[in-house]
Amino acid sequence: MASKWNRRLDFGEGRVDMTHGSGGKAMAQLVDELFVAAFDNPLLAKRNDQAMFDVPAGRMVMTTDGYVVSPLFFPGGDIGSLAVHGTINDVAMAGARPLHLAASFILEEGFPLEALKRIVESMAKAARDAGVAIVTGDTKVVEKGKGDGVFITTTGVGLVPPWVVGPSGERARPGDAVIVSGTIGDHGVAILSSREGLAFETSIESDSAPLHELVARMVEVVPDIHVLRDPTRGGLSATLNEIAQQSGVGMLLDERAIPVRGEVTAACELLGIDPLHLANEGKLIAVCAARNAAKLLETMHADPRGRDAAVIGTITEDPHRFVQIDTVFGGKRILDWLVGEALPRIC
Amino acid sequence: MASKWNRRLDFGEGRVDMTHGSGGKAMAQLVDELFVAAFDNPLLAKRNDQAMFDVPAGRMVMTTDGYVVSPLFFPGGDIGSLAVHGTINDVAMAGARPLHLAASFILEEGFPLEALKRIVESMAKAARDAGVAIVTGDTKVVEKGKGDGVFITTTGVGLVPPWVVGPSGERARPGDAVIVSGTIGDHGVAILSSREGLAFETSIESDSAPLHELVARMVEVVPDIHVLRDPTRGGLSATLNEIAQQSGVGMLLDERAIPVRGEVTAACELLGIDPLHLANEGKLIAVCAARNAAKLLETMHADPRGRDAAVIGTITEDPHRFVQIDTVFGGKRILDWLVGEALPRIC
Repeated sequence: MASKWNRRLDFGEGRVDMTHGSGGKAMAQLVDELFVAAFDNPLLAKRNDQAMFDVPAGRMVMTTDGYVVSPLFFPGGDIGSLAVHGTINDVAMAGARPLHLAASFILEEGFPLEALKRIVESMAKAARDAGVAIVTGDTKVVEKGKGDGVFITTTGVGLVPPWVVGPSGERARPGDAVIVSGTIGDHGVAILSSREGLAFETSIESDSAPLHELVARMVEVVPDIHVLRDPTRGGLSATLNEIAQQSGVGMLLDERAIPVRGEVTAACELLGIDPLHLANEGKLIAVCAARNAAKLLETMHADPRGRDAAVIGTITEDPHRFVQIDTVFGGKRILDWLVGEALPRIC
Repeated sequence: MASKWNRRLDFGEGRVDMTHGSGGKAMAQLVDELFVAAFDNPLLAKRNDQAMFDVPAGRMVMTTDGYVVSPLFFPGGDIGSLAVHGTINDVAMAGARPLHLAASFILEEGFPLEALKRIVESMAKAARDAGVAIVTGDTKVVEKGKGDGVFITTTGVGLVPPWVVGPSGERARPGDAVIVSGTIGDHGVAILSSREGLAFETSIESDSAPLHELVARMVEVVPDIHVLRDPTRGGLSATLNEIAQQSGVGMLLDERAIPVRGEVTAACELLGIDPLHLANEGKLIAVCAARNAAKLLETMHADPRGRDAAVIGTITEDPHRFVQIDTVFGGKRILDWLVGEALPRIC
């Protein structure tokens, strides 16, 4: 059968224009030839304004994240794969199995359709590799100069297996072990290295990756992990400080135990940034009872996403809720989170 | 207890800056003092990166929409209330009861905190009035000139009651009645009238409203409504053409039966626009078996959101899938959807 459109979209030279967001024929064609084709699943192919699917009784989680990363393509990923991994990970941090994703695109007039296609196909691949379908979506277009190429918001739903107690930010207790699943700062350095005006030599790639399979293994051996959190924006320092706030506890970390690649350390020295403030997109922090730490670590080491996992500290009793760190130089310092200094649009 | 922040956010003169999206303290404060305060529910107050809630076994629907309406404030609503109503309506169009919403904000550096607060409070009120909670969210900030004040993506989940057969775009059958729930074009005219350079005299307000209670009544009396759809972007013409495409049918409408306010007709004549192309944000189209039409209409008339409901045509057998319309002048014309001509950023 011939295409129902007069002529196919031009993914070579074509550009996004205002009609692609107007609800008319041009938008329907973009949805058909790009989104429905790439994401390829029966729920989306129905072309309703919502997806319908069966769920069993139980605990559901829902999470949403906007992605505005700049540049759109970076070593180790792009805004499309990031938008899939990031939201899958926020579902997984509740101990849940991701079920479905929704994707909303805000496109800037004039953006090349070829680049949009690469992003959408990367997104589709990331979703397929993770075994999660993008079942519903939306596309809007704003005038040139009112956006920045592509913004993507993904929303995920998932189900918490019955045996999982339910990790949550307020459940850290004095004596608990603090574990990180691998090297810190890779995503942040990969983004910064690809920014204009910040060019420096590095082979570091973003760690952007889905963590739901690692988490599934972890909650299988330790159903009562107290806290799971992925240290994205604001890095390890912001995430640990948030947990300290939510749980009303302090922390004592051992700087030497925190895995950081040599190249990341070098880049951070060059830029005058602490790697603990840098975003990660394929790492998690787990807080669990000390007696479960060895078992959990062993399971993590057996998974490719947790090979470099390490216990980096313990939860302490502290009315000030300070995150303290034993430095490599032997002193102690308070690890504060960023106040004014921002690393904008890292995700 | 004193605030845990050094000083409170300045909702008088303050502006969004890049630190509000950096994952650090400034962002945490914005989330605390604005979003958590306004949306006010225990799931959001937990401050996890996802919300967890119990669901019964059954059919779930999920839908997402980005809102980029310009201007942000318009007669009868603003981007905040619209982002709640629009997504509730997409959940409801599956015959489902909305359960929860997620909200993702993309803010432009320099946007006044006062205006952001008004938008967020309007959103909170719309959600409260509709009995639906905003349980999880995200905030990103882009540099001045890379966004346009505020973009909001809301995602909704809902549950389809067991007795509802399941309306879907491909279920229209020849002989079915086509019903519209009220006057057409109000939202589109309200937006256009508030745009710079398009000032004209009108007292028309946006029809932006949640339709889930109307739908709940409708599926109670007619559990097998074949299609439900809200004619937003692209208006009645795009929505009816989509249904014709999905179901492989034609339609014959009676122009005189389509409810349009006199002021909307007048404004459309002034602007040279067909009201059937204009967006609606508080109206629905229902397609049902002819024998159920009178019963459905009676139920709709009893609800304030369906007071002006009318049968506007019938589904026909047509391999060309044309939507035809008997005009007020006695002739017949094909109602095509918009191709090139766009009414950008209407929602």
